[in-house]
Amino acid sequence: MPSIAELGEFGLIKLLSRRVKAAPQILKGIGDDAAVIATMPDSVILATCDSQAQDIHFRLEKIDPVDLGWRAMAVNISDIAAMGGNPWFALISLLAPAETDAALLDNIYIGLQACAETFGVAIAGGNVSRNPNTLIIDITLIGMADANSLLLRSGAKAGDSICVTGTLGLSAIGRYLQDHPSAAAQMPEEIARKAILAHHKPTPRVTAGQWLAAHKATSAIDISDGFVADLQHICEASSVGALIDAKLLPISEELAHITNTLQLAANDFALAGGEDYELLFTLPAEETETALQNLSATCGVSASKIGVITELKDILVVNDGKTIRLDRLGWDHLSGQK
Amino acid sequence: MPSIAELGEFGLIKLLSRRVKAAPQILKGIGDDAAVIATMPDSVILATCDSQAQDIHFRLEKIDPVDLGWRAMAVNISDIAAMGGNPWFALISLLAPAETDAALLDNIYIGLQACAETFGVAIAGGNVSRNPNTLIIDITLIGMADANSLLLRSGAKAGDSICVTGTLGLSAIGRYLQDHPSAAAQMPEEIARKAILAHHKPTPRVTAGQWLAAHKATSAIDISDGFVADLQHICEASSVGALIDAKLLPISEELAHITNTLQLAANDFALAGGEDYELLFTLPAEETETALQNLSATCGVSASKIGVITELKDILVVNDGKTIRLDRLGWDHLSGQK
Repeated sequence: MPSIAELGEFGLIKLLSRRVKAAPQILKGIGDDAAVIATMPDSVILATCDSQAQDIHFRLEKIDPVDLGWRAMAVNISDIAAMGGNPWFALISLLAPAETDAALLDNIYIGLQACAETFGVAIAGGNVSRNPNTLIIDITLIGMADANSLLLRSGAKAGDSICVTGTLGLSAIGRYLQDHPSAAAQMPEEIARKAILAHHKPTPRVTAGQWLAAHKATSAIDISDGFVADLQHICEASSVGALIDAKLLPISEELAHITNTLQLAANDFALAGGEDYELLFTLPAEETETALQNLSATCGVSASKIGVITELKDILVVNDGKTIRLDRLGWDHLSGQK
Repeated sequence: MPSIAELGEFGLIKLLSRRVKAAPQILKGIGDDAAVIATMPDSVILATCDSQAQDIHFRLEKIDPVDLGWRAMAVNISDIAAMGGNPWFALISLLAPAETDAALLDNIYIGLQACAETFGVAIAGGNVSRNPNTLIIDITLIGMADANSLLLRSGAKAGDSICVTGTLGLSAIGRYLQDHPSAAAQMPEEIARKAILAHHKPTPRVTAGQWLAAHKATSAIDISDGFVADLQHICEASSVGALIDAKLLPISEELAHITNTLQLAANDFALAGGEDYELLFTLPAEETETALQNLSATCGVSASKIGVITELKDILVVNDGKTIRLDRLGWDHLSGQK
């Protein structure tokens, strides 16, 4: 395909528009000053944005552009899921160097649309612009929720159970394998592929978030920065602390296999890895067992209890009989450090 | 101030949050997975996004960061104005190199908030991220409109009058003076300042857009790419053409003075300059005179008729007794060419 500079702004918009399907909630999509969307009664609007910047969040040579589009959309949908909401429509802002091959953006749009469709999101519009050196995909996602059953970060109470959906750490070990091909080469192909895919193509927990919002969960967040860092967000917003039992951390067979082979600690990846896009949530103690069973049965995702909320405002982890107080453990997007 | 890497993601969010004021429509702002906003009955939602990329849309050494924040917000508000809507809330995505001084972003936020407040917009949330080399401000603006009085691009009919608010070309000559200090030095200081400010700090025509939506305007667009390019958008969306009388183009005294001094053609800047953020709109012929008078009286902005919509699908300009057929004349954001 031509470069985007050769194609021009309006040529590129026409090309990318073909990847976007019409949806009933979009009264007027791409092609006017603003998109027009029908409102829904008795709801509140949820709004979030997140960007994927080249060489910060992804390397073009390491990820399939279709997966990159999926990932950029999925991380935004995950934020709406963590509020218990219904993801609804998205605006896509693409910034790219003038010499970018239009086929790259076209493939990213295939992934954007695939993920959007899977979770009922309509792409309502967007913007394309040049950027001197790097490709940036910046997405704003608008959702809807029932005003009376929002999953905020601020509702956790001492005694509540701390729970997560799915397993932790596979995305982080997937990123590790992506960046260390010699380590990846030591793994059975299927296991390495699964770990890298967990990093490239996360699954936002939309139905689980909606189920939790409707069934007494007291707080929730999606795990993007890392389990401990995100637990800290809940603890700060709720003015509480947490006690985690490391042996209850849900570790997938794949993570166990990979970390055993490489002599790494699976728990480090589970606690601090980040980008799992699982839901971390709290439940009243007495509801926990039944709720986790029903959540799994209804939403088709496992969920486990791994700790309790405490009055003491520290995050403590019991590991091998020892209790460790954890400071911030996770990714800081600006310093690029744990 | 420290660099944003030293400050860290959460330190920066805390710093910038102090610039943002609470607003009644925002039920939950910065600090959860998504912002929560109250809906309004009998309305449709408008959604638009636009980005300002360093060295493409602005040069940091040429613009006051407070003005840059104003500008980034204003160009988005202008898109909602061009739909006849009520700008409502915004999400701000900032991408910047790790070594960026936090004071720069703090000043940009002062400008963002000042413009937002002036036009009734609440900053509901956003995102901060690193980007290897350039600063990017990407804004999504959500608005509301009455479902029955939207100003689309597609309603212009043969015989309608073509009109604009304010004057044309001052922003473009302001950009010229910004980029040519020796030319700027030839001007009275007040005139150069006014032209450069028209470029750095545009005024979106929100009340004019709402007035036009309520008073039979048949189409509208805001002038960002350039008068002719944006007229072409209306003509394409409405399947019509246009005949423009160049001597009716609204040229400010400042543009006339500057172009006379520099021996440039004022009409070139008015027709192709772009970034005026005035409204280009069409009115039924018989309503035009009264409507323009009432619009000026009600909204405090001049408005002039400068042509008519035709059935023939060309854009023709009568200039000095000659009729010229114009092809696309304006800015292409990807090729960086007129």
